[in-house]
Amino acid sequence: MIKALFYLILSFLLALPISAQDDDAFFIKKIYNTTLQSGKCYERLHYLSENIGGRLAGSVEAQSAVEYTKGIMQTMDMDSVWLQECEVPVWQRGGEEEVIIHWHKPNLSKSKILKSSDHSEQSKKLNALSLGNTIGTGSTGVDGEIIEVYSLDTLDKMGSTLLKDKIVFFNRPMDPSQISTFSAYGGAVDQRVYGASRAAKHGAKAVLVRSMTLAQDDHPHTGVSVYDEAFPKIPALAISTNDANQLSHLLKERPVNVSIKNYAKNLPPATSYNVIGEIKGSEFPEEIILVGGHLDSWDVGGGAHDDGAGCVHALDVIEMLQMLDYQPKRTIRCVMFMNEENGLGGGKAYANESNAKGEYHLAAIESDSGGFTPRGFTCTAEDDVFKDFFINFTSFGDLFSPYNLYLKQGGGGADINPLKSQKGLLIGFKPDSQRYFDYHHTAVDRIDAVNERELKMGAAAITSLVYLIDQHGLR
Amino acid sequence: MIKALFYLILSFLLALPISAQDDDAFFIKKIYNTTLQSGKCYERLHYLSENIGGRLAGSVEAQSAVEYTKGIMQTMDMDSVWLQECEVPVWQRGGEEEVIIHWHKPNLSKSKILKSSDHSEQSKKLNALSLGNTIGTGSTGVDGEIIEVYSLDTLDKMGSTLLKDKIVFFNRPMDPSQISTFSAYGGAVDQRVYGASRAAKHGAKAVLVRSMTLAQDDHPHTGVSVYDEAFPKIPALAISTNDANQLSHLLKERPVNVSIKNYAKNLPPATSYNVIGEIKGSEFPEEIILVGGHLDSWDVGGGAHDDGAGCVHALDVIEMLQMLDYQPKRTIRCVMFMNEENGLGGGKAYANESNAKGEYHLAAIESDSGGFTPRGFTCTAEDDVFKDFFINFTSFGDLFSPYNLYLKQGGGGADINPLKSQKGLLIGFKPDSQRYFDYHHTAVDRIDAVNERELKMGAAAITSLVYLIDQHGLR
Repeated sequence: MIKALFYLILSFLLALPISAQDDDAFFIKKIYNTTLQSGKCYERLHYLSENIGGRLAGSVEAQSAVEYTKGIMQTMDMDSVWLQECEVPVWQRGGEEEVIIHWHKPNLSKSKILKSSDHSEQSKKLNALSLGNTIGTGSTGVDGEIIEVYSLDTLDKMGSTLLKDKIVFFNRPMDPSQISTFSAYGGAVDQRVYGASRAAKHGAKAVLVRSMTLAQDDHPHTGVSVYDEAFPKIPALAISTNDANQLSHLLKERPVNVSIKNYAKNLPPATSYNVIGEIKGSEFPEEIILVGGHLDSWDVGGGAHDDGAGCVHALDVIEMLQMLDYQPKRTIRCVMFMNEENGLGGGKAYANESNAKGEYHLAAIESDSGGFTPRGFTCTAEDDVFKDFFINFTSFGDLFSPYNLYLKQGGGGADINPLKSQKGLLIGFKPDSQRYFDYHHTAVDRIDAVNERELKMGAAAITSLVYLIDQHGLR
Repeated sequence: MIKALFYLILSFLLALPISAQDDDAFFIKKIYNTTLQSGKCYERLHYLSENIGGRLAGSVEAQSAVEYTKGIMQTMDMDSVWLQECEVPVWQRGGEEEVIIHWHKPNLSKSKILKSSDHSEQSKKLNALSLGNTIGTGSTGVDGEIIEVYSLDTLDKMGSTLLKDKIVFFNRPMDPSQISTFSAYGGAVDQRVYGASRAAKHGAKAVLVRSMTLAQDDHPHTGVSVYDEAFPKIPALAISTNDANQLSHLLKERPVNVSIKNYAKNLPPATSYNVIGEIKGSEFPEEIILVGGHLDSWDVGGGAHDDGAGCVHALDVIEMLQMLDYQPKRTIRCVMFMNEENGLGGGKAYANESNAKGEYHLAAIESDSGGFTPRGFTCTAEDDVFKDFFINFTSFGDLFSPYNLYLKQGGGGADINPLKSQKGLLIGFKPDSQRYFDYHHTAVDRIDAVNERELKMGAAAITSLVYLIDQHGLR
């Protein structure tokens, strides 16, 4: 609280003149009015999610999304619109996954060798999805006994004596007591990202991973996995939380085997594109304010919250400023990044070119946390830069209080993080996180999971922040 | 901002010792942990919404809800649980409403008298619901030409020349540019509540009202209407926003007639009950902290957000404090109010008895804005009482910042407002409002419109506030 008081007193002493605050408040209200009544984000998201659909980098759908959003930018009165090349990995799911568990009735002793001919054998097909970047088994499949673990470190202790030829089942749930579901995700996702190689190191044949969600349901959640080249590549698939719970329950009383077939494959890298549009600043064109999301999504579902929402937010920022005839002092750049999900090819290409040109991003704002009701912004910057911004933000204070938006130190976003060396503000838009992982990387991340007003509120919040940074810069 | 600064400095000077703040922060974190992992609100709401269902005061379902929640309180270790009698109106929807509009193809002139035998006649059944308290037409129905209006005042200007024997169609939408959907609702709901008598005053035969929602869909929204006894009672029904839009469009080019049949009826008042449970305070038993919601709902849907959520929030407050072995200093009272929707019989009976006994409610907290992610609290109190509370709240400051909860001056709640003369704090729990009117008073206000984590976050927020008020009272 002492720090808050210090900042508040500072912001009081340095506050904008009341008349400027009134102008800003009035303009922000106009931004909200316009966005809530005439924002196009929802209809565009409908198109991205339902007409184009899942759009993994390197896919036909991703290319459609590039053309669609480039087309939109070209209808806007921007100074320039261009595509920026980037290299992306190409991973394909292939056919539908088949994961079937087999077990025997409980009166069988655990030591009995399982035979498929045993008349008491039970089986169940699980709801499963190959993880991004995983290899496939092809039609021959892999079979083996399942062994349940709760952490990567456990594997090293168990070693190959226990793990050789087994199918490792990672089942540590996301922690429901976390307030931010992103924190809960961060605490569990190592199993999905690194589980396969850590298990392969000790001779396991495949891994199943409990889906990264706090919901108890039947939807498997895909997402990126990364192989350590030092170990054999083994298949890795997510199973739904309901299935994970049932499997864990079964394993407490008896051995369970699984047969896995998946058809995933990695193809040679391809060329894809970031889509970029720019309005040159009238007073400080060399100070860039970037607003963006990532255009790619996983192949299942429609990538509505992740991250169609961020893309249509960014498009509405430009659209709303133009509808309000706003002439920016600084350069506003709208960026649809490619390949955030499995490689960051777009984010890296963007930063490489920007750094090479000696550009300066005063602020880069990424929306990649869904289309839910806005809660605020988090910001990564050097201490003195953040302090200046925080003082500004609290000088804005009353401007954001009708909308209940906070500013805290915290993450910017995966696509904009490579801009860190430019020492500007890296800002993450933070909508409410409670429902995000109900949909994340699933077949149900579709337009009907998005509320139109919540989405528009996000566009209005980001547009307001862009306006204020453009107006006042950093002191 | 000057006021905020003043309060913040005051709160700084008067702040709790750091050690007390640490204890409180720790306890609040425990409340959140316990609620998010073990809260029972969602399963209880499932029962209220899906097993009991819509529970209008005076109905069998409302009585089931009384018995269900009394049973739950009796399983808790409370000092006393009792039913408090109240009188409630009894209104029944009767059979399904039938609202059919008729119009002729556009080449007909407006002056032509419409005949049902005309081969060019078009018709459409609208999605409609009788408004609460309305009379029914019975099977004979009413027919008439529709006249569209946007405000009550327009009617007085139009007078009986234009309105006699017409069916008045109120079509002023809720204002989408309002940030709080409750403000948008407040700006439009006069049409639903008072429209019938204002139209009847000038000879209209019935009214149709655009549903009170910002969504564009097919769900009609019921809700209370009130007759002015000075004028004839005429039927009043809500139609969905999609139907309202289509009807308005038709009316721009031609006359449209409507035939209405509804079977609503008002029966003699009945006796019903508030359900109350209490834990006596160990140090200040005469200072009551009330937490409650209303048990009744409209008859359609499951009353999940309105207001099953508030009831199960209040039950979880008691449950969580008990799971944490917390012994309150002040008396905690959990109240399920009856008849908020159409008469406030429960709220009035509660305040009457409380005032007669000379009780003092230090704080009454009502949750009646849905089961969405918590945004904060609004409070009605005399200026000095509010100031004391605000200073306390900002002394708590850092305690609530991890949860991003605000405290603002504003409404308490319909059921607790009659306690105003006791001069305590009347506090409304404020979850995010964006989706509330998508479900309000409709057939889709069911458990699947409620997110389990968002609901539990609400229970945790209210429990934390009850804990802090109990610990620190008002200075």
